[in-house]
Amino acid sequence: MLHTPNHDYRILDAQGAAGYLAAHPALAAHLGGTPEDWTCRDVADGNLNSVFLIDGPQGGLCVKQALPYVRVFGEGWPMDINRARFEHAYASRVAPHVGTLAPRIHHFDETQFITVMEKLEPHIILRSALLAGQRLPRAATDVAEYVARTAFHTSNLAVPFERKLTDTGVFSGNIALQRITVDLVFTDPYIENPRNRALSPHLNLWAASLREDSALKADVARHRLSYLCKAQSLLHGDLHTGSVMATLDDTRIIDGEFALVGPTGFDTGTFIAHYVVAWFARSAQGGSPQDTASFRAALADDILTFWNVFATRFIHIWQEWDVENDGTPRSHFTSDTDRQALDAFRRSHVDDILVDTVAFMGVEIIRRIIGFAQLADFHMISDEAVRAKAMAGALSFARSVLLHLERFGDIRALLDALTEHDGAHPDDPQTTRSV
Amino acid sequence: MLHTPNHDYRILDAQGAAGYLAAHPALAAHLGGTPEDWTCRDVADGNLNSVFLIDGPQGGLCVKQALPYVRVFGEGWPMDINRARFEHAYASRVAPHVGTLAPRIHHFDETQFITVMEKLEPHIILRSALLAGQRLPRAATDVAEYVARTAFHTSNLAVPFERKLTDTGVFSGNIALQRITVDLVFTDPYIENPRNRALSPHLNLWAASLREDSALKADVARHRLSYLCKAQSLLHGDLHTGSVMATLDDTRIIDGEFALVGPTGFDTGTFIAHYVVAWFARSAQGGSPQDTASFRAALADDILTFWNVFATRFIHIWQEWDVENDGTPRSHFTSDTDRQALDAFRRSHVDDILVDTVAFMGVEIIRRIIGFAQLADFHMISDEAVRAKAMAGALSFARSVLLHLERFGDIRALLDALTEHDGAHPDDPQTTRSV
Repeated sequence: MLHTPNHDYRILDAQGAAGYLAAHPALAAHLGGTPEDWTCRDVADGNLNSVFLIDGPQGGLCVKQALPYVRVFGEGWPMDINRARFEHAYASRVAPHVGTLAPRIHHFDETQFITVMEKLEPHIILRSALLAGQRLPRAATDVAEYVARTAFHTSNLAVPFERKLTDTGVFSGNIALQRITVDLVFTDPYIENPRNRALSPHLNLWAASLREDSALKADVARHRLSYLCKAQSLLHGDLHTGSVMATLDDTRIIDGEFALVGPTGFDTGTFIAHYVVAWFARSAQGGSPQDTASFRAALADDILTFWNVFATRFIHIWQEWDVENDGTPRSHFTSDTDRQALDAFRRSHVDDILVDTVAFMGVEIIRRIIGFAQLADFHMISDEAVRAKAMAGALSFARSVLLHLERFGDIRALLDALTEHDGAHPDDPQTTRSV
Repeated sequence: MLHTPNHDYRILDAQGAAGYLAAHPALAAHLGGTPEDWTCRDVADGNLNSVFLIDGPQGGLCVKQALPYVRVFGEGWPMDINRARFEHAYASRVAPHVGTLAPRIHHFDETQFITVMEKLEPHIILRSALLAGQRLPRAATDVAEYVARTAFHTSNLAVPFERKLTDTGVFSGNIALQRITVDLVFTDPYIENPRNRALSPHLNLWAASLREDSALKADVARHRLSYLCKAQSLLHGDLHTGSVMATLDDTRIIDGEFALVGPTGFDTGTFIAHYVVAWFARSAQGGSPQDTASFRAALADDILTFWNVFATRFIHIWQEWDVENDGTPRSHFTSDTDRQALDAFRRSHVDDILVDTVAFMGVEIIRRIIGFAQLADFHMISDEAVRAKAMAGALSFARSVLLHLERFGDIRALLDALTEHDGAHPDDPQTTRSV
C-alpha cells in the first residue's frame, strides 16, 4: 500500500485538477466561465511530478502536484513529497530577484502538495526546441541573467550572513532530492548499478573504462565534496534545458525542487552540459552536414554567450550593490586602491566559479549518458551505432575536461575542445583519454 | 532592565551554584557530604560566562552558566543565551569521538542555561601554563588528535551527507556567536571601530597601515567567505589556548559554544595562532636570552608537532575508516590504482586544510592585537614600547603570511618566517611588508 503524506492527500487526475481549481474561486476566476468550459491536459514530462494545464475562456493555469513516488518509475521508488515545499520555498526566495524569468506562483497547497502557477504559452521546453533544431537565442542570455541574480542575491556577497544561514537551515532539510543528485550524478555512473542505463551496448567498453579510471573517480570525489560543502549561494539544483520554458523573446525557469545552498558553478555547469550534449547529439540526428555545422556553431555561441553574460552580469550586479553584507563589507573598500583590489577579487571569484562550472558540466554529461536519467537528445537517434558514436564523443570530452581542468580557465578553450572529441570511438575509450 | 531568557532564569552567584547542586541529588552525590562541607569559587576568566568550581569531600564539579550579556563588558552588550544550547549540542555531537579529550558533561539545564561538568584538576589553562613558561608537551599532540577526530567524523568523508546536513541545520541557528567571529575576527580590525583596543598607542601606525592595505582586505574577504561558506566539518570555532585545560599528561578541550559547520582549517589555524602569539610575546616577557630562545624553540616544535600529528592522524583515521560515506564512496575505490588515487586525494585534501590553516592563523593573530579581544600574552608586558615591538613582530608575520600564502605549503616555511619578522618596528609598518 502506498504511503500517503497525510489523511487528506489525494492524487489528482486531469479531471481532479480542474475540480481543484473550481473549488478555489480566486483560481477559477483566472480561467473564467464555468468548469464545463474548461479543458484540461496531462502534460507531465519530467521524472517526478504530475502536471496539468487547464484552459478556460479567460486564461489558463498550470497545476503541478508532487507524488509520493518517482512518477517515471512508479510506486516502487518512494520519493519524499516534501520536495514540493522546498520547490515553493525556493521560488519564494528568488522571486524578488528574478522578475518575469520565473513563472508567477498563484497558490501553494501544503496538504495536497499542489502548486498552481501561471500557464506559460506559447512557451516550449528549451530542450524540445533544441531537439527540433529551433534556436531560442534569448534563452542562454536569460538563464545566465537568472543565475547571476539568484547566485548573487542569495550569497554572502549580498546579505548579512544571518540571512544566508536562514536559507542554509531551511534547505538543509531538502535531503531526498540531494540524495538523488549524490547518487545519480556523482556516484552511480562510476560503479555497476542496476539503475544505470547506458542506452547502447556499444558503450559497454566506455562504461567499464570510466569505472576503472581511478584518477577520474578521485576528481569526481573532489567535485562531489564541493557540491556537498561549498555553500556559496542558493541553487536551482537541476538547471538543465528541460527546466527552462521559452519563446523567441521570453524565458522562464521552472522546477526548483532540487534547491540547495551549494556551489554556484553547479547551476552554470549543469546548464552548459546540456548544450554540450545537444552539440554532440546533433551530428547523429540526421541533418545535412551544413545544417549540423551551423546548428553546432549556434550552440557553441550560446555556451559562450551564457558564460559571458553570467560573468558580466554577476560582476555588474556586485559592483552596483550598495547594501551591507559580510562577504565584502562596504567599510573595507572605500579608497580607490580598495576598489581596485575589490574588482580584482570579483574577477578571481568569477574565475573560481568557472572552474567549478567546467567540473560540474563534465560530471553532468557523464551521468546523462551512463546513468539512470537519460536524455531525448540521444534517445531520438534510432541507429544504435550512430548513437553510441555521438555519446562516445560527449563522454570523451567530459572525461578529458575533468582530468585537465587547469586547461579551461577560459570558456573558449572549452569550445575548442568540443571538436577535438567529436571523433571519439565507442570501441576504444582509451584513445581519447589523453586528448 | 535586563532581558531574561525566561521567567525562571536566575543568574547564579557562587552560593547559588552550590545551592543548585544541592537541589540535584545525583550531582550532590558527586560532591559528597552536605552543602555545609562544600567550598565554591567563582573562576570565570573567559569573556562570556559565569564559571564556578564546587568541591566536596568526595569530589568536585564545574558549574558553567551562560549570561544574557557579555560578562566582561556588562549588560550593555546583550548576547544570545542560547549559545549554551549550541555548546551542549557540540559537546554531545563530538563526545563519541573524542574520549577523554573533553570533560565529561553530567547535566545540562535548558531553562537555567547551566552545564555541570567534570571538574578538571589539577589541570590549568594552557595559555596560563605557556605564560608561566611551563611547557605542557602533550597539549599540542592531544589538541591535534582532537581536531583530527572531530574534523573527520563530522565531515562528508565519514558519514552519509544526510548526517552532516543535520548538523548543518542545527548549527545554522548559532548565529549570535558567528556574528562575534565575523565582526571581531574578520571585520573590525580593518576599520576604525570603538571596539578595537590596540593596547599600545605605539601601534597606531600599524593599525592604520592594516586599514589601508587594500590587498590584505581583499585576502581577508576571501577567508571570511571561506569561514562562512566552506562547510567541511563541525568546528569548535574558538580553539585557542584558553579553550584547553591540561596537565603534563592529560588534555581537555572546553568551551565549544562558537561551534559551526565550517572549514577545518579554522580550528587548526586558530590554535597555531596562539602559539605564534606566545612566541612573539616571549621576548618581551623578561626572561634571559637563553630562556627566551629555548622556550621559543619549544613553541616552534609544538607548532610543528601539532600540524604533523593533525595531518598524520587525519589521514590515518580516514584510511582506517570502513563505513559508507558520500565523500569517497567505498564502491569507487576498490582496486590498487583506486587506492593509490585515493591516497593522493587524501594528501591533497590535507594540503588544502594547511592553506586554510595558515590563512586563518594570520587573521586570528591580527585580530588579537588590533581588535577587541586582547591576550594576556601581550597584556602582561608592562613596558609599552617593548610590548609594541613584540606586537609589531606578530603583526608583520601575520600580514606577510596572508599576502604570500603560496609560500607556506609546508609548515616548516611558517616556522622559518617567525624569526624573519621578529625585528619588525612599531613605527614603520611598511618596512616588513614585503618580507
